[in-house]
Parts: sequence; structure tokens; C-alpha cells
Amino acid sequence: MFSIELDEGVRLFALEPHHAQEFHAHIDRGREFIGRHVGFPDRATDTASARRLLEDFARRAAADTGRMYGIRADGVLVGGVLFPSFDARNGTCEIGCWVEPAAAGRGLVTRACRVLIDWAFHERGMRRVEWHADSANEKSLAVAARLGMTREGVLRENYLHRGQVQDTEIWSVLAREWPART
Amino acid sequence: MFSIELDEGVRLFALEPHHAQEFHAHIDRGREFIGRHVGFPDRATDTASARRLLEDFARRAAADTGRMYGIRADGVLVGGVLFPSFDARNGTCEIGCWVEPAAAGRGLVTRACRVLIDWAFHERGMRRVEWHADSANEKSLAVAARLGMTREGVLRENYLHRGQVQDTEIWSVLAREWPART
Amino acid sequence: MFSIELDEGVRLFALEPHHAQEFHAHIDRGREFIGRHVGFPDRATDTASARRLLEDFARRAAADTGRMYGIRADGVLVGGVLFPSFDARNGTCEIGCWVEPAAAGRGLVTRACRVLIDWAFHERGMRRVEWHADSANEKSLAVAARLGMTREGVLRENYLHRGQVQDTEIWSVLAREWPART
Amino acid sequence: MFSIELDEGVRLFALEPHHAQEFHAHIDRGREFIGRHVGFPDRATDTASARRLLEDFARRAAADTGRMYGIRADGVLVGGVLFPSFDARNGTCEIGCWVEPAAAGRGLVTRACRVLIDWAFHERGMRRVEWHADSANEKSLAVAARLGMTREGVLRENYLHRGQVQDTEIWSVLAREWPART
Amino acid sequence: MFSIELDEGVRLFALEPHHAQEFHAHIDRGREFIGRHVGFPDRATDTASARRLLEDFARRAAADTGRMYGIRADGVLVGGVLFPSFDARNGTCEIGCWVEPAAAGRGLVTRACRVLIDWAFHERGMRRVEWHADSANEKSLAVAARLGMTREGVLRENYLHRGQVQDTEIWSVLAREWPART
Amino acid sequence: MFSIELDEGVRLFALEPHHAQEFHAHIDRGREFIGRHVGFPDRATDTASARRLLEDFARRAAADTGRMYGIRADGVLVGGVLFPSFDARNGTCEIGCWVEPAAAGRGLVTRACRVLIDWAFHERGMRRVEWHADSANEKSLAVAARLGMTREGVLRENYLHRGQVQDTEIWSVLAREWPART
Repeated sequence: MFSIELDEGVRLFALEPHHAQEFHAHIDRGREFIGRHVGFPDRATDTASARRLLEDFARRAAADTGRMYGIRADGVLVGGVLFPSFDARNGTCEIGCWVEPAAAGRGLVTRACRVLIDWAFHERGMRRVEWHADSANEKSLAVAARLGMTREGVLRENYLHRGQVQDTEIWSVLAREWPART
Repeated sequence: MFSIELDEGVRLFALEPHHAQEFHAHIDRGREFIGRHVGFPDRATDTASARRLLEDFARRAAADTGRMYGIRADGVLVGGVLFPSFDARNGTCEIGCWVEPAAAGRGLVTRACRVLIDWAFHERGMRRVEWHADSANEKSLAVAARLGMTREGVLRENYLHRGQVQDTEIWSVLAREWPART
Repeated sequence: MFSIELDEGVRLFALEPHHAQEFHAHIDRGREFIGRHVGFPDRATDTASARRLLEDFARRAAADTGRMYGIRADGVLVGGVLFPSFDARNGTCEIGCWVEPAAAGRGLVTRACRVLIDWAFHERGMRRVEWHADSANEKSLAVAARLGMTREGVLRENYLHRGQVQDTEIWSVLAREWPART
Repeated sequence: MFSIELDEGVRLFALEPHHAQEFHAHIDRGREFIGRHVGFPDRATDTASARRLLEDFARRAAADTGRMYGIRADGVLVGGVLFPSFDARNGTCEIGCWVEPAAAGRGLVTRACRVLIDWAFHERGMRRVEWHADSANEKSLAVAARLGMTREGVLRENYLHRGQVQDTEIWSVLAREWPART
Repeated sequence: MFSIELDEGVRLFALEPHHAQEFHAHIDRGREFIGRHVGFPDRATDTASARRLLEDFARRAAADTGRMYGIRADGVLVGGVLFPSFDARNGTCEIGCWVEPAAAGRGLVTRACRVLIDWAFHERGMRRVEWHADSANEKSLAVAARLGMTREGVLRENYLHRGQVQDTEIWSVLAREWPART
Repeated sequence: MFSIELDEGVRLFALEPHHAQEFHAHIDRGREFIGRHVGFPDRATDTASARRLLEDFARRAAADTGRMYGIRADGVLVGGVLFPSFDARNGTCEIGCWVEPAAAGRGLVTRACRVLIDWAFHERGMRRVEWHADSANEKSLAVAARLGMTREGVLRENYLHRGQVQDTEIWSVLAREWPART
């Protein structure tokens, strides 16, 4: 029902369980590229498992502890942004993103992240938004930098993905560092 | 994050548990007027019970069995529309609405209902949208008529509200009767 | 343990999960006939799924929101009656019935329905008992008429069953219309 | 809906949550007498807690792990019988009883127990029905003896009730010892 | 993390879900011997079902209603002891044991039982510890006797195991009969 | 039942719900000192809330996602160590500690942490153990340093406690950095 225009023909919307088929088709197209650094594509291997993943986020949205959004370009789901965690009482959350190769390089996820961070700071009164990325994922680190985030540290050997251990960089931006709503 | 403009300065958005305080204040202003025919204002008597009501709908949204939306006019929550039930497998749902007196008579809920029915038919592939109203609630019946719905029957002595028994009119509109998306 | 004689050699009793095998055998015999208009035979395709259906009703009986009863003629389960919904707080419920062909035409379900309606009005203080039927199910409509119910309306394209859309007639009888207990 | 006549004007029926008020009034009348040896009266101190106790048994009935029945004499609830445990897979269960003073000494609970044991053996195929009683509860032990049960042992210091420790006698009757259904 | 030395090279420790593989291998070695009289080996037929059994006990430990412990001799899991039931409010519990053939006859389970009974009486303030055994299981009855327990009775035809019905002996020891902590 | 000696008269053991009264008394003595930097003392304000906190950890222990241990010196609970999170699949966990003033400065929590880290690395095969501390909590940072951990970064404005915002330092030690078991 609701969406926000990110660019001409590109819209951000809340991903829900009834998008399972579309979501699975998108993940299938991008599995190799998206799954290189992050884990959730490996949890969505068919429509049923894609639906379970979206249902998991639907329950977290209902509990205000996580949310997932999709990006459609010319009517095709090409990527998304998410709050993997959201702690309204403490005032902190994490955001993340993914995109399939065909839509990479257009700045779509950066714009989508700005929408989420705006909402977190201006509508929800959050104090801190975090970014976690594989230290070998240069594109993800570049998004954090473009968002004006500060690099706070590197968690060594923090994440096991497809049998490989990743270091995780943590970046963040604080409410007082984020531009006021215009 | 998301909203749709219904009229100048009037926006429709998904009501969530974090709106509990704003929702309770609105219900308090409209309790006498809104609660005359429908039951939920009596369940939202303070911020905590308002939050429980919104949490109930958040869980139903996550399960795709019900949803609740608010209408803000000039930044103030003045009413809303909802799917009290939603059965995607069967292709049927019910919609309803409420408004506080200060915002009544401007056609806001009718417009909001059109947005929901459009979504039900065009995005979710529903076949039938129902309307239930106290047969003494002329304003509610007028909305159903304005939406082009058909009166299908009257359930006698169907609903007990504040110690009084109401007859319930059932109206509906079918997908094949609804204008194509322009 | 408990049963009520409906006719010579015919008894009404509460169906429970431990009747799963007998229930499944009965549904299997009547699947074609019973399943023409109603959905539950398609949910009971073996003893395990029959048990799940009965367990679902057992939980609803425990919560006082639904109940299911069987009819045995000469020791064989041949049909039943049920409360698909029961709202004690609001004073309303729905009843329904089914029968396999071998036992049809003897008025057994009508008698069983009378027992349930008596209980709903006289022991539980309900105000309204509803009947929902496919408008093409003449036998079901005839039972409603025999029970002295009033036809209140037709919900168009209300129920999707085996790929076909049914209109649903709603009939009801009110406590004040039902004969006093003799 | 269902009941069985135990004696003239005396009927056995399934106790359910909607009997909470009647059940609480009965327990209140018999609290001193019934509660001398058994614990549940102390859990039903008002209508709400009586309802919770009945809801607990309703869930156990739905799961086929316990059941509770009432005895009404001349329309007044005066006692009951129960399966505190029921293990259909293993073929064993326990039964128990209680009665308020006004109805004691008429053999009502013994008759009610026979109905339950008949059902356990003849309809449910159980192999063994147990009886647990405070070794100081002569009336309860007498019921076990009248039912033809065998005393199997005494569990020393087995049950803490109102600050006192009771020894518990265990009696039982086996299916092969119980009269065939006539 | 924690363990207690029972004998040279023999230690008692809390069995947890992460021991599923080791537990299953042990049960497999002892299935014929252990499963002759008790039921749980038949529930642990592969690592997944072994894990579910341990998870069940982990939840019961968290709820303080049951616990399971393993015995490792020279680093190999060879048997264990358990509280199949534990009722802290009432002050009573049951203990049991099992051992694979290679480790039988060394008194390990008797020592392990003493540790559990010590804990039950001295740290948890229990009043009564029970022992249940198949009356044909001479080794189990001998352990009860060695622990100084008293034989209280025999439950006839009490337990169905692998299609055979067992009589169950109940033994117990009371806190006042147990040696003071030295 | 189980414990490990940390020093003469000082033992480490698993904290469980049945320790609620002892735990609450300890927290009460140390509330001002312990609660300066960490949040859980504010959740244990009486025996009932202390029990709920311990029950929460008992469920997390059963699910292998967190654990809590106490330290008794001369029979008095004076502090503890915990795994606030534990992810066996990913091979990472966090540890933490607390101590009441009377027992501070003796190195007890450092020793207890070593026991937990040993277990995590040597028995559970974890790869990384984390430490989170308020950057103003010099004593906590000193423990991390004494454990040979590496400071990996500072999360700015990360934790809201008693109305104040804390920066959080993250330290860690990896399995390959930890001494082999002797």
C-alpha cells in the first residue's frame, strides 16, 4: 500500500510474507553476489523458506525489534534495507542493506538507508544507528562512509559464513551528527 | 516512515504500538462519538491498554489477518481505517473506519477506505471486501453506499455493545465491481 | 461417556481426538457427498490429519469458542453437528451439520441441531444462533428452514471451495423465537 | 448438554469453565470438609481462581490427560469425580472424588466413580485405574474398597497439605478385574 | 564446566543438549541392555532425537521439575542418573539410573545416586526421594536396597514397555533416614 | 550439586531460580556498587523479580544462549560471572562479571572468568569471547586486560543506564590466543 520514491521508477516498501515468491526470485538472481558477505540468502532457498524468513521479520516488526524493506526498480525487486536489530528503549539500532548485481552502483541502497536513518532519528527518537560489515566487503564499508558514519572498531574473527571466518567492522552515526529534517 | 496523502495536510499511515500515546489521546477525544457504535474505544482506556490493542493488531498484521491505519490531519491523529479481518487464502476481508468529531464530514475516511480497497483488490488479489455496521449508524451506512457497496442483509440482534443489542448490516463490494487501477 | 438418544439406536456425543480413526473412516465414506459444499473433509485425509482437526476443536471447546459432536447410528459414526464459532460474551454462535449419504433423509441432523440450540439458549444464555450455507446447498437451507430460522441475507462470492466460489446464505434464530424448555 | 443419571434427581456432567460461579459456590460450602485431605479447594478461593482451575482441566481434557466432572443433586452442584491424570498411551489413569457434607453418605461418588471406570475400561481400553488417598482419609479408602480396588502400598510422607505431611495409600483395579459391560 | 569425581577417572556431570552426539553413541552401545526395563533409549534413536530428549530435560531443569546427569569413565559416557520428576514445593522427587554393560557392576550408579540424594536432602530441603523399578529388574531393586530405601508397594500392570506390561515397585528414603552431611 | 574452588573457601556454581532469595540479598548489599555500570541489579528489586531474572537465565541456559554463575566466599554469595550471550553455531560469546564491594579486589571474578573462558574454548569449541564494558568502568576494563584481551573499539553512546548514556568498549580474546589446557 505504502511506498517511497527513491529515484525515478524506484520505490522503497515494507517487505512482508505475502512477497515470498517475489523475494525468493530476487534472492535467487542475486544469491552468489549478495551471499558473498551476508548470511540470509542461504536461509531463503525456496518460496517456503523465503516466507519463513519474511515471517520472522514480520514478527520482529510487530515487536518493534527489527524490520525489513524492499527496493523495486521498474517493478522488479532488486534489493533492500533492514534493521537487523532495533532497541527503542535503549535508543539504538543496526541497519544493513543488500542489492542484486543488476541494480548495484546506482546509489539506491544509500538512499534507502538515509530514509531508514531519518525515520530512526526523527520519528523514533533513536540516539545511535550502527552498521556492521565484513571488513573485506568494500562496497558495504563505502556505503557506511557515504552515510557519514564513523568507524568504531573491528571485531576479530566475529562471523562464520560459509565456512570462512570474517572480521566485522562496526561503524555508527549518532542523532546529533545527522542533518536536521528539512 | 510511509504515508499516503489523502487530502491537503491529511495522511494515512500504519498505526503501530509505538503510537500508543498519540492513539490513546485521540481515542479519549473521540470516545463518546466513536464509541457510540463500535467497541474498540472501550478497550483503550489508557496508554497501556491502547498499546495492547495496537500490539494485537501488529501481531495480526504480521500474520496477515488484520491491519489498522491512522489518519493524521495537520499532524493530529483524527481517525482511522482497519481490516478487522483479512483472509488472503479465501480472498475475503472486512474493512471499517472511525473518526473523531472534529474531522468528521470531510470525506477523509471514505478516501482512506478507497486506498485500502484498492490495495486489497489490486495488490493482494482479494475477491470480496465486506462492511459491517450497526443498522442505526447512518454515517457508517452512508460510507458503504458512497463506496459503491451492495447491502446484502441484516443480522438481527448480532452485537452487544454497552448493554445494548445492535442489528448488523452487511454490505460488500466485489473485485469485479471495483474500478480498474488508473 | 455421555450421549443423548436422538432416535432409536441413534446417539449424539462429543467428538474428541481419540475418535480420530472412526472419524476418518466416516469422512472417507462421505467425502464426496459431504465435501461438496463444506471444507473440513478436505482437511481430514488420513487418521493423523483427522486427529489434528479434532484436536483443534478440542482446544476450541476448552476455550469455549467452538465444539464438535458426532452422531452414531447403530454404533456407526454417520454425521455430526458443530459450533464453528461460539462467543459467550456476545451471546452469539453459529451451528452447522454434516451427514454421510447412508444416513441422510432421516432428520437426524435436524434433531441434533435442536439439541445444540436448546443448550445454547437454555443452558448457556445465548441470544442468537446463526446458520451459514452455500446458497446452492438446498438440503442445508432446508434444515435451517425446518429449525424455524429466518433468512437474513446472502453474502456474494463469500467462500472459495475446491476452486469454486460460493454465495453464502445467513439464517438465524433468536432466543425469543425459540420454544421454551418443556 | 450431556449428563448421566446417578440416582433420582442426581446427575453427572462434565465441569467446564462456564460453571465457575456454581463451582466456586459449591467449594465454598464444602471447603472445610473437602479441603481436609485434598488440595484443590485451596486453589479455588473466588470465581476467577475457580475458573482458572476449571480452565486448567479443560485444557487437560482437550489433551486427553485429565478430566473433571460434577454431580448435581436436585439442581445443586454437591461434588464431583475426576481423572487427575490420564495416560491413554500407557493405559493407566488415576481417579478421585470429592463431595460436600450435605450430600455425603448417599453413595453418589461411588456410583460416579463406577461410570468413570466403566468408560476408562470399556470405551478407552485402559488397563489400570489408580486411587490415591491420604491414609487418614477413611471415607476415601472406603470408596476404593467398595469399588473392588486392591491396596498396593503406602507412600510415606508423600504429600504436604496445609503444613501437614500425609502418607498416601495407592489402590488400583485392573481391567481384567472389572465386570464386563452388561 | 562442573563435575564431581565418583571414582578414579569417573566423573558425574550435568547432561546438556550439546552432548547429543556423545549421548546417542552411548545409548546405541547400551540400547539392548539399558532398554530392557526403561523407555528412554527408544526415544533416542539418532543424534536429533537424542538432542530433543536432552532439550526436554534442559527445559525441565530450567523449570526445576527434572534433571539428567551423565557419568563418564575414562572420558567415555557410560551411564547416568536422573530426576524424572522433582516437586520442590511438595518436597518430593524421584531418582533413577542407567548404565551400559561395560560399566556395570562397579557401583558407579549407586555412588552417583548418593550425590543426587545428598543434594536433594541437604541443599534443596526435600523430604522424600522415590525409586520406581520394574519388579523384574533385580539390579535396579538392588540399588534401591543399597541406598537404604524402603519398599513401599507394587503397582500392578503399571507400565507398558515394548509391548510388555511391567509391575512397578516403589521404594523411598526419607530425609530423616538419610545420614547427615559429614 | 556442582561447584569449582576458585580460592580457599571460594566456590563458583551455576545460579538457578531456587537461589532467588540469596541472590536478591546479595544484589541488595551490592546494588549501589554493582549497579553503577550495569543494568541487571535494577531488575532484581525483590525476591520475585530476582527469581524472574534467574528464570530468564535458566531458560537461556536450556537453550544454550546464555548462562549465569555465582561466587560464594565463606558460604556467602558475593558476585558472579555470566555469558550474556552465547552463539554455539557461530562460535562466539560474551562474558561479564559483577562483585559486591566486600569481595572486590581479591581477583575472584578474574579467576571465575578464566574458568568460563576455558570451558568456552576447550569444552565448547568457541572461537571468540567478547567483553563489553562502560568505558568509564576502569575496574571492568582492568579485568579484560588481565585476561589478556585485546581492545577492539568503542561504541559511542551505546548504552542508556539510569538516564546516562555510556560509551561501550569491546574487547575480546580468541581461541588461538588462549593458553592450551594444562
